[in-house]
Order: sequence, then structure tokens, then C-alpha cells
Amino acid sequence: MIRTRLTKLFNIEHPIILAPMTPAAGADLSTAVAAAGGLGLLGGGYGDRAWFETESAKITRNDVGCGFITWSVAKQPELLDFAIERHPRAIMLSFADPAPFAKRIKKARVPLICQVHTVDQARRAADVGADVVVAQGTEAGGHGQTARSTLPFVPTVVDALSNYAPDVVVVAAGGIADGRGLAAALMLGAEGALMGSRFWATKEALIHPSAKAKVVAASGDETIRTSVYDIVRQRAWPEGYTGRLLKNEFIAKWHGHEEKLRALQADELEKVEAASRVGDFDVANVTVGESIGMIHDLPAAGDVVRRVVAEAKVRLAKYDRASLE
Amino acid sequence: MIRTRLTKLFNIEHPIILAPMTPAAGADLSTAVAAAGGLGLLGGGYGDRAWFETESAKITRNDVGCGFITWSVAKQPELLDFAIERHPRAIMLSFADPAPFAKRIKKARVPLICQVHTVDQARRAADVGADVVVAQGTEAGGHGQTARSTLPFVPTVVDALSNYAPDVVVVAAGGIADGRGLAAALMLGAEGALMGSRFWATKEALIHPSAKAKVVAASGDETIRTSVYDIVRQRAWPEGYTGRLLKNEFIAKWHGHEEKLRALQADELEKVEAASRVGDFDVANVTVGESIGMIHDLPAAGDVVRRVVAEAKVRLAKYDRASLE
Repeated sequence: MIRTRLTKLFNIEHPIILAPMTPAAGADLSTAVAAAGGLGLLGGGYGDRAWFETESAKITRNDVGCGFITWSVAKQPELLDFAIERHPRAIMLSFADPAPFAKRIKKARVPLICQVHTVDQARRAADVGADVVVAQGTEAGGHGQTARSTLPFVPTVVDALSNYAPDVVVVAAGGIADGRGLAAALMLGAEGALMGSRFWATKEALIHPSAKAKVVAASGDETIRTSVYDIVRQRAWPEGYTGRLLKNEFIAKWHGHEEKLRALQADELEKVEAASRVGDFDVANVTVGESIGMIHDLPAAGDVVRRVVAEAKVRLAKYDRASLE
Repeated sequence: MIRTRLTKLFNIEHPIILAPMTPAAGADLSTAVAAAGGLGLLGGGYGDRAWFETESAKITRNDVGCGFITWSVAKQPELLDFAIERHPRAIMLSFADPAPFAKRIKKARVPLICQVHTVDQARRAADVGADVVVAQGTEAGGHGQTARSTLPFVPTVVDALSNYAPDVVVVAAGGIADGRGLAAALMLGAEGALMGSRFWATKEALIHPSAKAKVVAASGDETIRTSVYDIVRQRAWPEGYTGRLLKNEFIAKWHGHEEKLRALQADELEKVEAASRVGDFDVANVTVGESIGMIHDLPAAGDVVRRVVAEAKVRLAKYDRASLE
């Protein structure tokens, strides 16, 4: 147990949040993290209603929240009503302005978590009533901005909100995969850590075994921020957002040749979709961050939670008062 | 006092190293950091011999080291002999393979510090006999790679060297400007922090007052990695290296238009040099990193050291054994 403002806010045992990754964070993963004493968030992603309802139906705990890609859920606002009713523990909004949805979430008294990538976004999140601001660095897997890295970004957000919105709880995200990262996040002034890649590489994650095997074998130097899969899938990400992925043949071929890729989009989409079906991750995307450099196995998610907390406690206790005289 | 393997290695009071920035880290700044109990490194930079000798002559302490841009000092190897004789406390090599110089430094029994940006570079530094490996994230000011961010990079380097070269001391760099950053670095497994921007923004730094004022006023969101000044100055940086700088009009004009800038290089160089002379930092470069978001004043460097250590101690002592039961 490491008590922080985050654990108090959600009445959870450990200051750890599961990133609502789609499709990795389905019912099994979000349930497992909640069962282990963290905050489990079901991945709402772009808002695939069928997937979201199916996974939601499998969740029997009442303490699992969920998260969405803000600009995408805007296209089907009814999904948010479903989420508010079904997952009132917490709703997380990432990427783009949370204002259009914040009011409904707050009105329903559902805790609102907003992920931010700049100091201005952090203030904006506080303005619309966020209970938790997740300050995410560019080392994180999946979508985000290149603007800031976690270590200097988190204390800057803490400072920006300390007088402006002192009740808002700041959580660190990006590059955290073990107890060292969680302990560092707490030193930076965060009240906990949101972890994606580390939970992506667990038994429960809804990810093809070949992709998981690739990540376990990869070094932390092997990820890159790119837009090539967004181009192929015609995802209309706002300016400034790219996705961090494991480097592969597809990225080596198209990153830096985006105009040509746009011209051949339909053909390449077919190839990517076929590759996803058969588990060919030289072509299909593997969405993970720099912290894969610390990921060498595929444990159960509950074991990840316990392991991270145990390691963080050892680190945090290392410098007790006596050793600092 | 925070005792680590770094403080033992150099017999210093605090686990803090001054980044050998040129021209900021002249005799005054490197002396001030050493006097306050950190490791002061004189900036050797590209190897401007006249500047280096002048500043060296002003240093009366025998515990100040120095640092060079490896690929640039290669062009005037005699400068390294001067440094070995004059600054035997430590020599730091950054950017490019340290092998051609490591032997002479080691033979002279001068402690060798190597700055690295990838795990492979960390192993290479250990191979050539580095006593200290500085793992620098992309959030750092000045030159570096975009490859890795400090928070996930440092523990990855620690792990990579823990069996491979257990005697090598790992130090964190990039984004560290206060006690929170130092405490986080220690949690990540580093034995100390190398700081640039925070010391750049001190009384002693050889930087124009207008540039310092701009940095104190800026937000941490306002830096960018670019090559525009390297193009203008015809610096032959190896592939993959860019510089992180405060955004300004010159960068807004030329970043993304590098080919055009190359064509107009001579004219633009004249403008940049004129701007540097008169202190016009809309045109001249301001070389700082993301940690400027935490920099709001221009204290004496010794006060920075004391402040960072005092804050780190408070943070490190926060989670004592009792609070973690």
C-alpha cells in the first residue's frame, strides 16, 4: 500500500491506473487491475460500440472505469451516456478538448480524468472540472504529442495547478513500467502513475501473442512516433498528435514518405488489415512506448501491480531520514 | 548531503554535475558548482582553443573537470592533452564514439564521463572504459538525439550495465532542474543528476542577460528540437543529432524549410552573428531544455546546488518505512 491523494480519491489500494488502451484493455485486463487494487479502465478507444458493449457486458465488478479518444467519441455521443451509466467509477478523456463532454460526466457525478500533453491543456482540464489530470510524456505508447517528456512535464503540471486548481490530482504517464518509474513519479509530485505498455504486455491483454512476443524481445530504443497507420486507416487525428509504435518493416517503408502512402492508402489498408488478422507484425502495428526496454515477460496483470508496488516501496524507503543527515 | 556512488567516486558532497555547456559553463560557473559541493565541468564545446585556455586560466581550484563535443574535438586532438593536464578531475565526452580519446584519458588516470543517448551507446561507453555514463533524454537542452526520454531511458541504461559493467556509475540528464528531478533520478537507479538549463539560468553563466530573461519568462512548452542553427553555422553534426532550443522567430521562419536555409546560409549566418552580438534572441539561439518550465529566477549557482539538494532530501524522506506499511 502506498497512500496518495489518488488512492484516497478512488478508494483504491495502489496509486496505479490502467491506460484505457483499445483493444488491449478489455474486460479481462481492466478487471484484473481493479481486482489487484489499482484503477482499471476499459478501453473505449475510437468508439467501436459493438466491441465496447461486448466487453462491458463481461465486467461484473462495479469499480471499473473507462476511457475514450475525445475527438472520436464526439461522433457518437450516445456512447458516453452508456459509459456513464455502465462505468461510473471514472471516465477518462484523452486527446482534444474535453469541454463538450465534461458537463455530462460531472453532472452524473462520475469522476473525470483528463489526459494532457501541454501545460495549457492541464489548465483547460482543470477549467472543465477534471478530478484527475494525467500528464503524459512523449515516451508513452500510442497517441500523444511530441511536445513534452514525462520527467520535466509532470512537475510543471503540478506547479501550474498547485494554486490554480489545488484539488486536482496529478498523475504521471509515459515511460513508467516498474517500481522505479512509480517511485520517480511520486518524487516528481504526481500522486500515482498511469501505465499502458506494461499492462499491454500481460496475459490478459487482448493482443495477438506474436505482437507480445515481439515486444518482450525488443529494446527500448526501438520505438518511434509516426502517423503512417493513421494515414492508412484514415483516422483524422488533430494536428500535433502522432502515435508511438514498435518500429517494423511497414514503418521503415512509409515513415517519411507520407504523401506516397496517401496515394496508395486503399491498397496498403488492405495489407495492414490482412496482416492484423494473421498476426504479421512486420506489417500490422504494435502500439507500445519506450518503457518496453524494461519489459521482459508476460505476467498476469495482477502480478504487475503487486510487483510495481513492491519495487516502488523498496526504492521509496531507501533514503530514509537517517541516511540524509 | 546525499551519499551515492557518484559522490564517493569524485569525493564530492552532492550528486550533481554541471553540464559542460559552451559558453555558459565558463570558469565562474564551473568554479561555483565545485565550490558548492557538486562536480563542476568547464565547457569545452566544439573546441575553441582561445576561449578554453582563457577560461581555464581563471580557474584556481584543482577539482574542476571539463567536457567536449567528441566529434569536434577530434579535429584538434592537442586540446585534449591540454585538458588532461589542466583538468584531471574528470573529462566528459558527448556525442559520437568516445573510443579514439578514451585511451589517452584513461592512461592519464583521469576519470572518463561519457554521455549517451541509446542503450547501445551506453554499452560502448562501458567498453572504452567510462567511469560514469550520463544517460541523457531528449528533453535536455542543446544537442542530443530524439531517441529516448529520461524517465524510461535511465533505468534501461542501469539495467543494461548492471551485469555488463557493474562498476560504471549511471547519472541521469535531461529535464532535471530541481530537487524533484534529482529525487526522481535517484529512484530510477541513477547515482546523481547532470543539469544544464538550471545552471545556464544563474548569475555566473556566460550568457547574455536578455537570453536569461527570455528563459525565466518562458513556459516549458516553448522548446523545440531543430537543426536550423547547425545549418547556418555549418556544424557537421552526425546523423540523428539535433539541438533543443527556446522557440523564436528564426526557428519559426526556418524550421521545416531547411533546404531553403541551406541556399541562403551565408546571409542568414551574418544575421545570426549580428543578433548574437547585440543580444537579439528573436534571431540568435537560446540553448535550453524543457526544464525551463521550472526555472523562474536567476540565482547564484551555489544557491541552485543547495536548493536542489534540500528539496530532494525533503522528497526522498517523504516516504519513510513507516508510511509504506
